[in-house]
Amino acid sequence: MALNKSPYRGTRDFFPKEMRLRNYIFQKMAEVSELFAYEPYDGPLLEEVDLYLAKSGEELINEQIYSFTDRGDRKVAIRPEMTPTVARMVAQIHREVAKPLRWYAIPNLMRYEKPQKGRLREFWQFNADIFGAGQHGEVEILQLAVTLLKSFGANDEHFEVLVNDRRFVDLVFEKLIGLDPTSTKKLYKLVDAKNKMAPEKFSTEVRVLTNDETKAKVFEAFVGLKSVDEIKTFAETYLNETEQLQPLYGLFEKLNQQGLTEYIKFDPSIVRGLDYYTGMVFEIFDKHPENRRAIAGGGSFANLLQIFNEPALEGVGIGLGEVPLTDFLNTHKLMPDFSRPQLDYLIAYLDTGSEIRAMQLTQKLRDKLQKVELYFGEAKPKKVLSYSDKKEISKIVFISESEIKIREMKTRTETTMTFEEIIEGTK
Amino acid sequence: MALNKSPYRGTRDFFPKEMRLRNYIFQKMAEVSELFAYEPYDGPLLEEVDLYLAKSGEELINEQIYSFTDRGDRKVAIRPEMTPTVARMVAQIHREVAKPLRWYAIPNLMRYEKPQKGRLREFWQFNADIFGAGQHGEVEILQLAVTLLKSFGANDEHFEVLVNDRRFVDLVFEKLIGLDPTSTKKLYKLVDAKNKMAPEKFSTEVRVLTNDETKAKVFEAFVGLKSVDEIKTFAETYLNETEQLQPLYGLFEKLNQQGLTEYIKFDPSIVRGLDYYTGMVFEIFDKHPENRRAIAGGGSFANLLQIFNEPALEGVGIGLGEVPLTDFLNTHKLMPDFSRPQLDYLIAYLDTGSEIRAMQLTQKLRDKLQKVELYFGEAKPKKVLSYSDKKEISKIVFISESEIKIREMKTRTETTMTFEEIIEGTK
Repeated sequence: MALNKSPYRGTRDFFPKEMRLRNYIFQKMAEVSELFAYEPYDGPLLEEVDLYLAKSGEELINEQIYSFTDRGDRKVAIRPEMTPTVARMVAQIHREVAKPLRWYAIPNLMRYEKPQKGRLREFWQFNADIFGAGQHGEVEILQLAVTLLKSFGANDEHFEVLVNDRRFVDLVFEKLIGLDPTSTKKLYKLVDAKNKMAPEKFSTEVRVLTNDETKAKVFEAFVGLKSVDEIKTFAETYLNETEQLQPLYGLFEKLNQQGLTEYIKFDPSIVRGLDYYTGMVFEIFDKHPENRRAIAGGGSFANLLQIFNEPALEGVGIGLGEVPLTDFLNTHKLMPDFSRPQLDYLIAYLDTGSEIRAMQLTQKLRDKLQKVELYFGEAKPKKVLSYSDKKEISKIVFISESEIKIREMKTRTETTMTFEEIIEGTK
Repeated sequence: MALNKSPYRGTRDFFPKEMRLRNYIFQKMAEVSELFAYEPYDGPLLEEVDLYLAKSGEELINEQIYSFTDRGDRKVAIRPEMTPTVARMVAQIHREVAKPLRWYAIPNLMRYEKPQKGRLREFWQFNADIFGAGQHGEVEILQLAVTLLKSFGANDEHFEVLVNDRRFVDLVFEKLIGLDPTSTKKLYKLVDAKNKMAPEKFSTEVRVLTNDETKAKVFEAFVGLKSVDEIKTFAETYLNETEQLQPLYGLFEKLNQQGLTEYIKFDPSIVRGLDYYTGMVFEIFDKHPENRRAIAGGGSFANLLQIFNEPALEGVGIGLGEVPLTDFLNTHKLMPDFSRPQLDYLIAYLDTGSEIRAMQLTQKLRDKLQKVELYFGEAKPKKVLSYSDKKEISKIVFISESEIKIREMKTRTETTMTFEEIIEGTK
């Protein structure tokens, strides 16, 4: 029986056209990271499952992780996220190196998901983290995120960065509303789901959860907050102490000074589930009504190294998936055309006697860093031209025993040149 | 209990220093491939096990493959090699596209091996393949391999490409020596192991296998061949028909015309096991006596698409592992120093009042594609200078409320400049 030609469900074959696009995206990620002095790193494809058991969310472990036992009886998993790996790596070296540490990676990750728009089983995720830099790091990671999206041609009409602070959320949920931990967890999930729910349903669920009209009102006032000014009024009304609000105020002051508030807004519904975040949290959303989804997310964490028995080291990170980013760029028509390969030269010989010279010219031009394709076999000019249509070629060279003709594809002009003139005329 | 900080056995953590090195290697691979008009592609990390069962060697399947059953009961494997994937992808599109197809990839692969020098469980492998180009493709792949190694600064003192042809081997083994298939297989393995055996042992084993002194002599004459001229004499002595030798003669004639014979030699011991190769086969060896091992290997295959019920399409491919390549470059001291990150600017503010200006300068310089690190917090010049020792920085800017000083790290000179002068003076 013939084998299946399709890729494994939820994964992709990257043919050259798709791969050029992927390279374009990854290159921007690397370039912008390097402008911000972030250094590249990578970890292994497999980690021991224990690493994820210690830190990743329950859904990831129970439903999404690709785990198995290796031939040496170790329980391992294909990485479903990068943060546990980066924490493990930083734990090895953080005592000896100068801080802050600025690192980025673009790993492939796997999760057992039901494939759908914007979600696949294998995907790449840009990760950038800064360790040991406090609020400076928060500003920098947000700035990096905005710069990265701008580098693709996007602006504040296309995307917005929604920011919250877990310390503020905790203050409201634990101190002000004061439910037991299980109900507080549910409150988190409810905030997270708010934008996907009908207002009446939300209102009902709030009351079921809080079982107290006053608490329900506080909660609704919280989720209705739209700016730092509104938080200040909210704090005056409901809170005795505002110490846990200072980081959020300070953050927005800095963002304001940097002219970033056209991109970055406060949004109380951003809580980032029950992840390892302990400070600022954010998500970046596509503003297009037909693609209203998160492109990226991240935040600050106080202590990822605890599970390795290492002293605390605060950090800030961002994860940005290549699948939602591609959807975002396509939605806003910001993706360049990668359908055809680009070549500097196509070299064809019109008689077998000229093959060696054609090969020599090919090599000389490649020595000068020109991208050159050698057309194999005795060529017919018409056939060469129709073949060249499928590629973006600058110049075609026809070599015969009597002469060498060079055809500029843009101007459609042909000139007779010598072997040496072609090589010398090349940058 | 604290978690393990080490990576999974046989895999590596790539800290920035190692990652810069890996990026350097991958970039050369991509650059040289593009000069040769090869287009990038990639496939999924996981493939269905059936794909490998159909084409990969027994050792790979039985002992080395990472396979498991997914949550949907599919038998899958982490790719241990790229050729089955590229064959599956080409099978999807080869009927519609112009030939030849020139493709390259740098996938990470996993094999359950006993970790040792030059061999790890997770590794990257450069793959380049050309489909539909016959002997032209063989010459091109060998040329590409030589150009790639030369791009790292290596030359014919450092490496050699050893070439053979399976058609010639088959002619000798099947027609001339004429053993049953099982013994022929063993003969292949014996040739493969020849260079690791004592001559007496080899001689004994030849006689055990052939069980015929005349056949043993023919076999020994074959394995002693050192050049195309010697093959011609061998053919005159032993062979009635030499049709199957013409491709090998033709190949060396072309390599000779291209001046490649200083790098590329005939070697009868290169047989590439029992793989899918059907024509030219080659391996690239480090010539250093202390690192005498294969860096790369490949060859021609007549029909990788058969398992997909597709018409035959001949191809030529090379696989080059990043682990043996790194060992090779280190052995010959050809590896640049990647220990320190490179930055254009480090910007420090000497009083809190200058923080905003420092941030603004940072952003302006990044807009001009400069790699800039912002030194967080009120800085002390001495501390900044000692911090900068760990990085390769071109210029340090000290901003205070009274002035902006710029320090050229190469000349150790300091100049006072305005905000605008710094930005304008930058390319």
